[in-house]
Amino acid sequence: MAMAAAMRQAESHHFLRHGGRLDAARAAWPDAPGPWIDLSTGINPKPWQPAAPIPHDLGPLPDAGALLALEAAAAAHFGVAAERVAAVPGSEIALRLLPAIGLPEPIGSVGPGYRTHRDVARGSGEPRTLLLANPNNPDGRLHRPDALLALVEQQRGREGWLVVDEAFADVHEGAGIAAPLTPDDPVIVLRSFGKFFGLAGLRLGFVIAPPAVLARFRAYLGDWPVSAQAIAWGTAAYADGSWIADTRASLREQAGRLDALLRRHGLEAQGACPLFRLVDHRDAGAVFERLSRRGILTRPFEDRPSWLRFGLPADGAAFDRLDKALAGG
Amino acid sequence: MAMAAAMRQAESHHFLRHGGRLDAARAAWPDAPGPWIDLSTGINPKPWQPAAPIPHDLGPLPDAGALLALEAAAAAHFGVAAERVAAVPGSEIALRLLPAIGLPEPIGSVGPGYRTHRDVARGSGEPRTLLLANPNNPDGRLHRPDALLALVEQQRGREGWLVVDEAFADVHEGAGIAAPLTPDDPVIVLRSFGKFFGLAGLRLGFVIAPPAVLARFRAYLGDWPVSAQAIAWGTAAYADGSWIADTRASLREQAGRLDALLRRHGLEAQGACPLFRLVDHRDAGAVFERLSRRGILTRPFEDRPSWLRFGLPADGAAFDRLDKALAGG
Repeated sequence: MAMAAAMRQAESHHFLRHGGRLDAARAAWPDAPGPWIDLSTGINPKPWQPAAPIPHDLGPLPDAGALLALEAAAAAHFGVAAERVAAVPGSEIALRLLPAIGLPEPIGSVGPGYRTHRDVARGSGEPRTLLLANPNNPDGRLHRPDALLALVEQQRGREGWLVVDEAFADVHEGAGIAAPLTPDDPVIVLRSFGKFFGLAGLRLGFVIAPPAVLARFRAYLGDWPVSAQAIAWGTAAYADGSWIADTRASLREQAGRLDALLRRHGLEAQGACPLFRLVDHRDAGAVFERLSRRGILTRPFEDRPSWLRFGLPADGAAFDRLDKALAGG
Repeated sequence: MAMAAAMRQAESHHFLRHGGRLDAARAAWPDAPGPWIDLSTGINPKPWQPAAPIPHDLGPLPDAGALLALEAAAAAHFGVAAERVAAVPGSEIALRLLPAIGLPEPIGSVGPGYRTHRDVARGSGEPRTLLLANPNNPDGRLHRPDALLALVEQQRGREGWLVVDEAFADVHEGAGIAAPLTPDDPVIVLRSFGKFFGLAGLRLGFVIAPPAVLARFRAYLGDWPVSAQAIAWGTAAYADGSWIADTRASLREQAGRLDALLRRHGLEAQGACPLFRLVDHRDAGAVFERLSRRGILTRPFEDRPSWLRFGLPADGAAFDRLDKALAGG
């Protein structure tokens, strides 16, 4: 079936805007065998879990000291000083606040990019504020540190800003741009907790930025930006160095396994981000449809009909179902 | 001890900006007997609890259908259609976004009011956008519905807007202004989940507004504005009609008990909101200090040294400690 027809059948906008729309997939393919496998996002399918239940009191407003401890734990993981970091209820909200915090316009995004990057772009012409993702989504491209630092200098030269969305940067030790920068550099880094740690439902992210920019974010978010559970879990997870190291290794291994599986079916994956792999193939629309009919949701792209993005299967059974579904006619 | 001296000792800004700063209280009065009793906020000290654990998956992004179900449950509780409601990660963030959503300026707040109301005010002169709380905080004043509807007409006549912060309105059945309004009325209502339900750590609130205003809030907050836990707990709690009715009755009863206790110590409480009671007394500073030394935190006000706000004690033991602490010299 052609991509266009599949998309009409599938209430297309749900799938084409963002991943993770399992509810829409269930409605579009009611006869698909369950349980659905969601490969439409880049969220780690093996979440961090606490060794023992983490006490947190949902009753009062989250404690100011506990929020500072979370920001300190996150900052240590990012390799920056704690005062450069502000917690936000998901990096999506930080992205969406960019046009409201007084950055110079035009705000331009480097494509191909995450849908929300285009939503927050403003004005036209040479961007004074340049927004990119590292690693990039959906193509998994990893920018070289020296190339990013050259962009910082370019933006400083035109009194502009560089915004780096590092939502997927945890997978690469040392991939973050923030550590070597100073608070005077015109750079805003956005980090996501939920993707690498596999806990997107917590809604937790961070901004690393100069003090005046952090103050503008905080003016919108107030003194209790994230939930008590996000504070408790985030603080413990960022401190779990052995889980982080093991997970980096395991994600690379699983991504290699996914690449090999896709290759066996004639699909060549690209990119350097092990949380998702992008396939560029003329049959992408047919593959999306075939997998959906078998209860496996992947991520198509509205303006790139030859693209299909695959998240990591959670386990051997999910790899097997993907293998069989790709083999099916 | 005079208020000024007590405030210096207590790193004053922590207590004078917002309630709930138990961490700062512990640091300021390290010898106070514990556990601290927090009467500095207006949060119900007896939180709603699920009858059985509510399943919610923290791994994936929160489900779009589940978010719609939460908004529908909240809307039913507010007495409005579901499409008039958007979930936000705490009504504090909705308040703080008001200056960013394109409301006409000046934005003015009706005093005395919640600290954040003053933070979001913009410009001077007759407000085109008028912000008030009902019931008001900290004085507990309840506006009459006909007076509020007259304000709506006044604002419409000057092509302005009325923003009603109903963070504490759940305590009064039918106190919300939204139900009789239409989506064409120039009114934005903000609701808080955490105060009445005693779960401020969840970070959940709602905006009730015309479609164009909801769209502007959603442009900043995106498709996953609140956590999976907030969705699961909020949906169940708003549907728990018997808990809601019982809690309204019980809060009135406990507020009456607090009023009687305060009166026995020469402190007359005012206001119609049972989640907090305001005392206006020349000895307010001394009372704040006396209670703090005994491990009971209340809420003083920077520009009103004769005011002291009391939240509801959680149980008989807390009432007893308050009674004894007020009796102490």
